[in-house]
Amino acid sequence: MFEARLVQSAILKKVLDAIKDLLTEATFECSDSGIQVQAMDNAHVSLVSLNLRSDGFDKYRCDRNLSMGMSIAMSKILRCAGSEDTVTLRAVDNPENITFIFESPNKEKLAEYEMKLINMDQEHLGIPETSYSCVVKMPSQEFSRICRDLSQFGESITFACSKEGIKFSATGDYGQATVKLAQTADADNEEEAVVVNMQEPVKLTFSCRYLNCFIKAGPLCAQVQLSMSNDVPLVCEYKIGDIGHIRYYLAPKIDDDEEN
Amino acid sequence: MFEARLVQSAILKKVLDAIKDLLTEATFECSDSGIQVQAMDNAHVSLVSLNLRSDGFDKYRCDRNLSMGMSIAMSKILRCAGSEDTVTLRAVDNPENITFIFESPNKEKLAEYEMKLINMDQEHLGIPETSYSCVVKMPSQEFSRICRDLSQFGESITFACSKEGIKFSATGDYGQATVKLAQTADADNEEEAVVVNMQEPVKLTFSCRYLNCFIKAGPLCAQVQLSMSNDVPLVCEYKIGDIGHIRYYLAPKIDDDEEN
Amino acid sequence: MFEARLVQSAILKKVLDAIKDLLTEATFECSDSGIQVQAMDNAHVSLVSLNLRSDGFDKYRCDRNLSMGMSIAMSKILRCAGSEDTVTLRAVDNPENITFIFESPNKEKLAEYEMKLINMDQEHLGIPETSYSCVVKMPSQEFSRICRDLSQFGESITFACSKEGIKFSATGDYGQATVKLAQTADADNEEEAVVVNMQEPVKLTFSCRYLNCFIKAGPLCAQVQLSMSNDVPLVCEYKIGDIGHIRYYLAPKIDDDEEN
Repeated sequence: MFEARLVQSAILKKVLDAIKDLLTEATFECSDSGIQVQAMDNAHVSLVSLNLRSDGFDKYRCDRNLSMGMSIAMSKILRCAGSEDTVTLRAVDNPENITFIFESPNKEKLAEYEMKLINMDQEHLGIPETSYSCVVKMPSQEFSRICRDLSQFGESITFACSKEGIKFSATGDYGQATVKLAQTADADNEEEAVVVNMQEPVKLTFSCRYLNCFIKAGPLCAQVQLSMSNDVPLVCEYKIGDIGHIRYYLAPKIDDDEEN
Repeated sequence: MFEARLVQSAILKKVLDAIKDLLTEATFECSDSGIQVQAMDNAHVSLVSLNLRSDGFDKYRCDRNLSMGMSIAMSKILRCAGSEDTVTLRAVDNPENITFIFESPNKEKLAEYEMKLINMDQEHLGIPETSYSCVVKMPSQEFSRICRDLSQFGESITFACSKEGIKFSATGDYGQATVKLAQTADADNEEEAVVVNMQEPVKLTFSCRYLNCFIKAGPLCAQVQLSMSNDVPLVCEYKIGDIGHIRYYLAPKIDDDEEN
Repeated sequence: MFEARLVQSAILKKVLDAIKDLLTEATFECSDSGIQVQAMDNAHVSLVSLNLRSDGFDKYRCDRNLSMGMSIAMSKILRCAGSEDTVTLRAVDNPENITFIFESPNKEKLAEYEMKLINMDQEHLGIPETSYSCVVKMPSQEFSRICRDLSQFGESITFACSKEGIKFSATGDYGQATVKLAQTADADNEEEAVVVNMQEPVKLTFSCRYLNCFIKAGPLCAQVQLSMSNDVPLVCEYKIGDIGHIRYYLAPKIDDDEEN
């Protein structure tokens, strides 16, 4: 039997909002240690890696490892949860269905949604742990805003990171746009700080289309962490409360030297 | 001459919002006792019955019974009323037009909208007063939410009522959904109470499409009353302040036994 | 060199919102005394005249008169400014580009948008100063509301001004609408006052389509001023803080006598 309970259904809603634009279906792998999703987006360009640790749940039990293929109907179901509701996920050991149970705080409303599981090919991807040339932490709202703003000016955004800070730029039909963020001098408010950890400078260009999917995770966490090295995929990471994290991987575009 | 005056134009706006999705035109029957509308929806499946008592108006005068056919342009006109405006409806005895007069609280703005009446065939329907097996009162917001949520899962919703409470369920392509509401133990806050008055259990299935029109009346009243007997139409009733009420009637779907 | 700096970028955003529905491109004429735009709308029916005085800016420098043709992409750029940002416009003496610089209050975010200028034919229009038969000041929100409301009833609105106040009316398929505003008796709150300054009564009819473009300037100023004489264009003027103003000119429709 599998059972996982979260007092705050809102977190799970936000998690689904963070993946539903990239994945129309996904395999949720449940084990004693927690729930994992790892999948390429539909166009096989970016990779989503979601991790929810069992100890982050208010109740968690997983007698046998399960791979549950879920369609994105799951996000429709989660939208039916009230903002104060407790959510429980439940499945038998060889499940054909998963049940979502929402309970109102006063216990007078009980909603059960039973969703058919789907069969999916397993593609398990090993993601090597690497150390990165630059690791930038910044407010996730600021990052979202910059991605949206610069998307108006071109199809891709160049991230250039140096000791002073990080610079985002885009070029398009009606001109050129640049946004520079300086390292925060004093980190009074940790959530609003911009912190750059740099081994060596990097300059990488990414597709706006994917960046604009990643920023859907913004509501999960006040800060986003960008890990970059030249010629390797960007890692864009959002913490999920005390439960886990979501990471997006995206390979840089290969440009002609002239363009940079 | 006919004249009816309401200090709160907002009520009339909400009434129009509650019928405009079902009726593109309707006959307003005005008499000494008040204003009545009774009409089948355009597809002739559900019935709307609206009642505004003359004593609920701040001023009311109706020298001769009138049947005024109004197009739903009326809801456009009411949208032009300010939220603080007083509204007056006025017509002569053999009217070709009806005039809506909106006055601002400081009397410095006066708006008059004269609308042409339309000729409509009168279909007067007798609705027998019946006693029902189950009468459920519940928060109208909760009812709206449930109808909207379950509409995502199928084309119809089954209402099952027993001593414990009321259960709503829907089945569709990606699974099954059930929402159970228990009777409220103590009715501290009357507006949030769920109260079930049951003679015998009922189980009835209704089309989502119509339910989702009925819930447009939600803003009129904090509570909705559902009256049900097996094999007879549901009555879904919202009180309109101290002025009257709106009732929607909808016949249950006839299902195969297997499906229930 | 040209440089103009405004601590409140919000004002410039609102100015662009006020012209972008009428003009897809416009020449900004910059001189020592300030910035001017004067252009017919795309259909050559109405005229927009925008004036921003140099002394209204927090910093202003214009070494040589410049005519800069800007596409309405400018409003996209201004949408990228944070609500607290300071905005600076900068160009060289024979510019091919103009640069918009947004600085956050803490100086840690610096965004630069460089926009290509476009070549435009200069059409300089002399607008004679005239005295008008009626000058009406009224709350811009009220004027916006009336234009939007009456647009539902017809394609044009008739403005009739007399000592008592101003009357707006429209006639269409389903009836007739009239809104009368009386002069405010006591002007406790200047922003909410309706003030009519009348030499002789006027009655003029204007196209809703243009009026609904003009009211986009509403957020710039709590009051709008309407200047009218029979058979000459309406002037609809909004002040822009302490910096300047925007004026819209619109010729009245010529109706058959019967219609009035």
